[in-house]
Amino acid sequence: MITGKNYIGSQLKASGTKTVKTFNPVLNKENPWVFTEATPEEIDEAVVLANQAFVSYKKCSGLEKAKFLTAIADEILALGDDLLVQYCSESGFARGRAEGERGRMIGQLHSFAAMLTEGSWVQATIDTAITDRLPAPKEDLRKMLVPLGPIVVFGSSNFPFAFSTAGGDTASALASGCPVIVKSHSMHIGTGEMVASAIIKAAQKTNMPEGVFSNLIGGGKTLGASLVKHPLVKGVGFTGSISGGRALFDLAAQRPEPIPVFAEMGSVNPVILLPEALKNNSQKWATAYAGSITLGAGQFCTNPGLLIALEGNDLNKFAEQLTEAIEKIEPGCMLHPSIHADFESGIKTMEEQNGVSKVAHFKGDVLPNHGAQTILRVKGEDFLKNELLRHEVFGPFSIIIECNNIAQLIQIVAKLEGQLTGTIIGEENEPEQHTDVIAALQNRVGRLIFNGVPTGVEVCASMIHGGPYPASSDSRFTAVGTHAVYRWVRPLSFQNWPDDLLPAELQNENPLQIVRTVNNELIKETISI
Amino acid sequence: MITGKNYIGSQLKASGTKTVKTFNPVLNKENPWVFTEATPEEIDEAVVLANQAFVSYKKCSGLEKAKFLTAIADEILALGDDLLVQYCSESGFARGRAEGERGRMIGQLHSFAAMLTEGSWVQATIDTAITDRLPAPKEDLRKMLVPLGPIVVFGSSNFPFAFSTAGGDTASALASGCPVIVKSHSMHIGTGEMVASAIIKAAQKTNMPEGVFSNLIGGGKTLGASLVKHPLVKGVGFTGSISGGRALFDLAAQRPEPIPVFAEMGSVNPVILLPEALKNNSQKWATAYAGSITLGAGQFCTNPGLLIALEGNDLNKFAEQLTEAIEKIEPGCMLHPSIHADFESGIKTMEEQNGVSKVAHFKGDVLPNHGAQTILRVKGEDFLKNELLRHEVFGPFSIIIECNNIAQLIQIVAKLEGQLTGTIIGEENEPEQHTDVIAALQNRVGRLIFNGVPTGVEVCASMIHGGPYPASSDSRFTAVGTHAVYRWVRPLSFQNWPDDLLPAELQNENPLQIVRTVNNELIKETISI
Repeated sequence: MITGKNYIGSQLKASGTKTVKTFNPVLNKENPWVFTEATPEEIDEAVVLANQAFVSYKKCSGLEKAKFLTAIADEILALGDDLLVQYCSESGFARGRAEGERGRMIGQLHSFAAMLTEGSWVQATIDTAITDRLPAPKEDLRKMLVPLGPIVVFGSSNFPFAFSTAGGDTASALASGCPVIVKSHSMHIGTGEMVASAIIKAAQKTNMPEGVFSNLIGGGKTLGASLVKHPLVKGVGFTGSISGGRALFDLAAQRPEPIPVFAEMGSVNPVILLPEALKNNSQKWATAYAGSITLGAGQFCTNPGLLIALEGNDLNKFAEQLTEAIEKIEPGCMLHPSIHADFESGIKTMEEQNGVSKVAHFKGDVLPNHGAQTILRVKGEDFLKNELLRHEVFGPFSIIIECNNIAQLIQIVAKLEGQLTGTIIGEENEPEQHTDVIAALQNRVGRLIFNGVPTGVEVCASMIHGGPYPASSDSRFTAVGTHAVYRWVRPLSFQNWPDDLLPAELQNENPLQIVRTVNNELIKETISI
Repeated sequence: MITGKNYIGSQLKASGTKTVKTFNPVLNKENPWVFTEATPEEIDEAVVLANQAFVSYKKCSGLEKAKFLTAIADEILALGDDLLVQYCSESGFARGRAEGERGRMIGQLHSFAAMLTEGSWVQATIDTAITDRLPAPKEDLRKMLVPLGPIVVFGSSNFPFAFSTAGGDTASALASGCPVIVKSHSMHIGTGEMVASAIIKAAQKTNMPEGVFSNLIGGGKTLGASLVKHPLVKGVGFTGSISGGRALFDLAAQRPEPIPVFAEMGSVNPVILLPEALKNNSQKWATAYAGSITLGAGQFCTNPGLLIALEGNDLNKFAEQLTEAIEKIEPGCMLHPSIHADFESGIKTMEEQNGVSKVAHFKGDVLPNHGAQTILRVKGEDFLKNELLRHEVFGPFSIIIECNNIAQLIQIVAKLEGQLTGTIIGEENEPEQHTDVIAALQNRVGRLIFNGVPTGVEVCASMIHGGPYPASSDSRFTAVGTHAVYRWVRPLSFQNWPDDLLPAELQNENPLQIVRTVNNELIKETISI
């Protein structure tokens, strides 16, 4: 049951007067539920509660936090079909995608719970005392990672489960020991409320402090700005557009006490098709790329928006094969009429640019809010001249860039802004003939892919979902994978600290049996002083 | 021999017309050398060279970079006595301090060289493929840390060796694989030039690319601002004042492509004297603190500026003992007349505040530019009312805060801005009676110390020299210790990448024999696929 209210900690509140609704893009009509926006008092209350919760939440053991995250996963599953129906009604995605993305969200929660249960993620580092050192003795020093404080999470439009209310940002922040305040994404507030209700239930069942999680509703930019500027907020996670992410980054940097913002702002994810692969395997890659471009109606941060190759017959053949493959795919419903409208106008702007021509466009009937996949082409020299062609068009869209030689291809790659991913398609021995291409690409991306598609972001320790600006606001961190937790923690040193007052992670006995760096060696052993 | 010129890579250049001199505070007169400020063209040239150097420098192996850092240490030592004499003439410090700080600088270079030789610092993380996973196979993913690009280092006034030209920021950035451009600190430009000459020699002897290091001279704020705003600069390290660090942070955040700034901006390093320790051991701690407050003429970022305790006879006795101890210590020469003037006016301002009275002040003759150590006292309620009393007075100065109960003491600690360090002085069983005090302090600091003094910052993996804002601009990093390298690197993922094209750190064979996280386990073993 959707109440339309904010969760201020465990309390459902709606003392405000401004309301907002969500939209069903498949039915092309407003959804029935009425949501009440949080008032300034409610916003402040949520942050103050989070700050109070921090005092005890940061002291929770890894096992206690793991139980909390596991309980969130369980409570989300307990919502059953109702949650999937709600998700579909507010996203336009089909049932299969809803189930798949729920699986991903649950999997993420479990992977952070596993990380907490194992425990070594805190990077415990110990240098024992050398009392007879000259000229001065060396004191015992130990450090580990501790949480920053209340974190604000801005959910994404395109992943109502995996990158929203209980998505990667929330899961990683809760894992770190930070309370979370979610700004519910305005396109799926009902889905957000249901997931929030599961988090609140889980918090109560596992005895987490009141205020460890809140879920706030707000249209426009007021709610977000109020949260980022609140002095008790200590960090921000965001997934969305460059303009939205940069606005929050700027607000956070301008605070009297600046706070870290990790904004994942998407990219065009260049794909370089090397000559031999294009010659020998164009059909295989045309089919793979038609699928990748249209997956989820093209609404992935890692959607391949640029296909870069040398001009000529092989590329022409690839373009034909891609056209054929892409025109066979039924267009998907996009998230919202506004996103669909931006997609259409984005393509129109691209088509108007000098030297741009159309390669493929879905020709059948297109339902309202459905994105007709489109491929354009442009010569390398025209692409280099026009900064606008480097912008992302969010949806099932790619531009083929025809380069007249490898030098131009490298020049194009070097000119790209920071990217989440960069892909090389080549025959087995081709990459070693093009190390300059790879070096240029490596410098611009967070993840390099060989012979694959950029869509599909595995949740594991070695995944990087981030990259040089503007793919993310800080290339030193990732939004996906267990290492996403490192955005919300800081190291704290203890010097000459009494053993029994140290956190368990740093005590001589190593009661948690974690891996620690002791005098520059990674070991699990206890320390005898 | 001092040339007075800029190092643009290995070239000594001085095409500008603006000149500047340094000052000998002991002799109380200008030094003879004339230094020429870098022109806008020279600044640009240094950054462009650094960016070109980055292409090959980032490919250097850990061993090659270790040789470079070791050679820097050797070349600095080869400068012999001349360098120590130069240091003393531009800092006012005595010979013993010069030797000690040179040892620290050399030690830092060696500790980064050792880290590079061992090699595991890159945090290699590998998740191998699962080709038969359902519903979709899992691709092979591997990640490691790679350098960001050219880094600008702003040396400190108070550590002409250890936090300047070849100090921790430079050593950590060069270790990471980033070229460095130093803005020479205007108080010790000659010392900076000599150290820079050693770095350049070391670069040439170990075949490092031209431009891997430059050293620029500039008065005022123009040079610094030009460097931070330069589009090819990818990160900034700074040690100095809050106003200086914040100005650079703001410039970096306002760039079209924001870049990370790690600014260490000092703090007042609160020390809490718990009641039993004050009662039983006041003489011991009074002596220790008189030494800590006056060490290096009080010009340490970790100088203890606040002594917080419960009011009463025990504290009065401590104040008397501290007075006695501090008045026996001969005042030290401060770095520069401007720093001495700021010290004097800072004390004057503090003395004028409501409720503030003088405890101790060196009474003998004081030479020019020497800092007469001063202790003030104020009641907790007056301290709480006056934000100004929380500011740092750089030099041999502390305020004793007399609290009327533990609740007020906690309130004071909670109101403090972020600090590099926080110290608890207590009898063996005292800390466990005051866990609320410790919790409040822990929330505000980068390093907690028990029964010690905050001065003396050990260089090791478990040291944190940083802390919540404004102690540093990003509490997630440290300026001291080998982990300082993590400010200048970002993780890069390789998906399905051919083994022979992976960096050695990520190859199946593990040719460097480093510790890696393979499928969530820390191991040194090779991977058999």
